[in-house]
Amino acid sequence: MSAPLSMFCGLSAFPLTPADAEGRLQPDALAALIERLCAAGVDSIGLLGSTGGYPYLTREVRREAVRVAVEVAGGRAPVIVGVGALRTDAAQALARDAEAEGASGVLLAPVSYQPLTEAEVAQLVESVAGASGLPLCLYNNPRTTGFTFSEALVAQLSHLPRVAAVKMPSGVPDLPQQIARLRASCAEGFAIGYSGDAGAPEVLLSGADGWFSVIGGLLPAPALRLARLAAAGEVEAAKALSDELAPLSGLVQEFGGFRVMYAAARIKGLAVCDPPRPVLPLPAEVLPRLEAALAQAPAC
Amino acid sequence: MSAPLSMFCGLSAFPLTPADAEGRLQPDALAALIERLCAAGVDSIGLLGSTGGYPYLTREVRREAVRVAVEVAGGRAPVIVGVGALRTDAAQALARDAEAEGASGVLLAPVSYQPLTEAEVAQLVESVAGASGLPLCLYNNPRTTGFTFSEALVAQLSHLPRVAAVKMPSGVPDLPQQIARLRASCAEGFAIGYSGDAGAPEVLLSGADGWFSVIGGLLPAPALRLARLAAAGEVEAAKALSDELAPLSGLVQEFGGFRVMYAAARIKGLAVCDPPRPVLPLPAEVLPRLEAALAQAPAC
Repeated sequence: MSAPLSMFCGLSAFPLTPADAEGRLQPDALAALIERLCAAGVDSIGLLGSTGGYPYLTREVRREAVRVAVEVAGGRAPVIVGVGALRTDAAQALARDAEAEGASGVLLAPVSYQPLTEAEVAQLVESVAGASGLPLCLYNNPRTTGFTFSEALVAQLSHLPRVAAVKMPSGVPDLPQQIARLRASCAEGFAIGYSGDAGAPEVLLSGADGWFSVIGGLLPAPALRLARLAAAGEVEAAKALSDELAPLSGLVQEFGGFRVMYAAARIKGLAVCDPPRPVLPLPAEVLPRLEAALAQAPAC
Repeated sequence: MSAPLSMFCGLSAFPLTPADAEGRLQPDALAALIERLCAAGVDSIGLLGSTGGYPYLTREVRREAVRVAVEVAGGRAPVIVGVGALRTDAAQALARDAEAEGASGVLLAPVSYQPLTEAEVAQLVESVAGASGLPLCLYNNPRTTGFTFSEALVAQLSHLPRVAAVKMPSGVPDLPQQIARLRASCAEGFAIGYSGDAGAPEVLLSGADGWFSVIGGLLPAPALRLARLAAAGEVEAAKALSDELAPLSGLVQEFGGFRVMYAAARIKGLAVCDPPRPVLPLPAEVLPRLEAALAQAPAC
C-alpha cells in the first residue's frame, strides 16, 4: 500500500503574494511570509494559490515568486505552486517554470472563461501533468473557476501519471461519506484534502489527508496546532482552538479570504499592499472587527 | 431627447478571431470575416467579444486584431472592441490600444477570478471608461464572468461619462418589462441591447435598441434580414426566418457559440482554426447536425 505524498498531507499554508499596484512582486515581503511559515513548521506552502492571487500576476512575476519562496524555504517545507491559467499552453509553461525554480509540486485549477466540459478539463489536467515531472494536485474551486469536479472525474484523473492529490472545496454536507467514496474510487496513494478555514477540525477529524488553509498562510502557528490536534483525534481541544479562530474564519467567509488576508497582513505589519484592482481592499468599517478577530486568535 | 448611439443599435455581429494553436493571429482569415460583415451591411462589428475569444489572447494580438478589423472595415461599420481583462490596469491599457487603432467603442465584461462585488465592478467600469475617449458598452455575461449586473447597477452606471450601452444576456422571462424598467431608470440616450441568437426576433420586437449576435458574426446576411424584419414589426416574416435558423441557434445553445462557430467557419471555408485549448473543437459526431443546420440557413 503506497501512502499519499507527504507534501499533500497535514497543513498546507496559503500565503499572499505581496505585489505593488502594478503587479510587481515585493520579494522581501514574500520572503518574510515564507520564513514565518517555515519557522512554524507547516507541512507545505501553497504558493500562488487563490489567496496568492496567481491569475492576476504575469508569468515572469509568478516565476520570480517561486524562486524567492524556494530559496527562503531552503528545503524546510515543500513549495506547491499554483499553475492555473486560461490557456493550456500557458499552464504548461508555468508548470515547467515551477519545476525549473525548484518547486516540489503544482496545483492546477481549471481557470475558465468559456465554461469547460469534463472532457476539456480532463485533457487540460493530462496536458499540464505531462508538462513537468512534478506531482500535481487538482484544485477544485467552483467559486473562482465556475467548474465543479465531480467525484467521478476526480477518481478518473487520480489514475493519470503524476496526478497525486485533490484540494476539494469546503462545506460538503456529508464529509466523511465523501472521503470514503473518494478513497474507494481514487488511485492508491492519492491524497484527499480540503480547503476552508471554518470547518478545519471536521476536515481532519473526518480522515482527510490534508487541510489547505488561508488563515494558515498568515497565522501558521495556531493553524498548525489545530491540524495536529485534529490529526491526533483531540476533538475537544481542536474545537476549542477552532472557536478562538472563528471570528477570523467568519470574516474570511463573509468577505473572501483574499480581501481579508491583505488587510490582516497590513494590520500585523507583515506586508503593506492591496489586492489587485478591480478587487478592492476590505471596507474600512470592517477593520475594527478584523483587528478584534486577530487579537483574539491565539499565538500558540 | 438624445437617441442612443447608432453603433449600439441594430445588429452587432460578433466574429471569431482566427488564431493558430499558439494564439498568433491569422490576419487574412480575420480580414475575410470582417469583409463579409461589412459587405452584408451589419450595423456594427463586435470584435474580440466572447466569440472572439478575447481573454485567451495577448494584448499584442488583441491590438493587432483591432488594427486589421478597423483597416478592413474602412468606416463601413463601427468596430466595437472587447477590452475585458482580469486586472483593471490591463483593461485600461486595452481600451487605450483600441482607441489608438481607430476603434469606435469598447465592450467591457467584468472578467473575474475572485468573485467581484457591485462596488468593485462599478469602480472597474468607471476606471476603464475614463481610460479612453470611446463610448463603452457594459457586457453583462454571467455565464462567463460569474458576475450578474443588477438592473439597478446598470442604471447607476448608465449615468457615468461615456457609459453608453449595455449588452444584456438572453433568456429573460419578462423581456418587455425589463426593457421598460431599464428605459425608465437609465440615462437618456443609453442603448439597451441583448445577446442571444435563439430569441432574436423577440428582442427587437420588444423594443430593444440592439441585438448582439454570434450567428451574425458568421452569417451576417440572414441575421441582418432578421434584425430588419423585427425592427419593421414584420412579426410573421421575422419568426419564419428565425425558425430557419433555429437548428443553428439550437446548437449554439447546446454546445456554446464559441465551439460551434469555429466548426462552422471551417465547414464554410472561412477560417481553418480551432478554439484555444483547453476548449476543444466541437465533437466530430455533432458535425453532421451542424452541416445540416448550415445548409438549412437561408443565404438571403
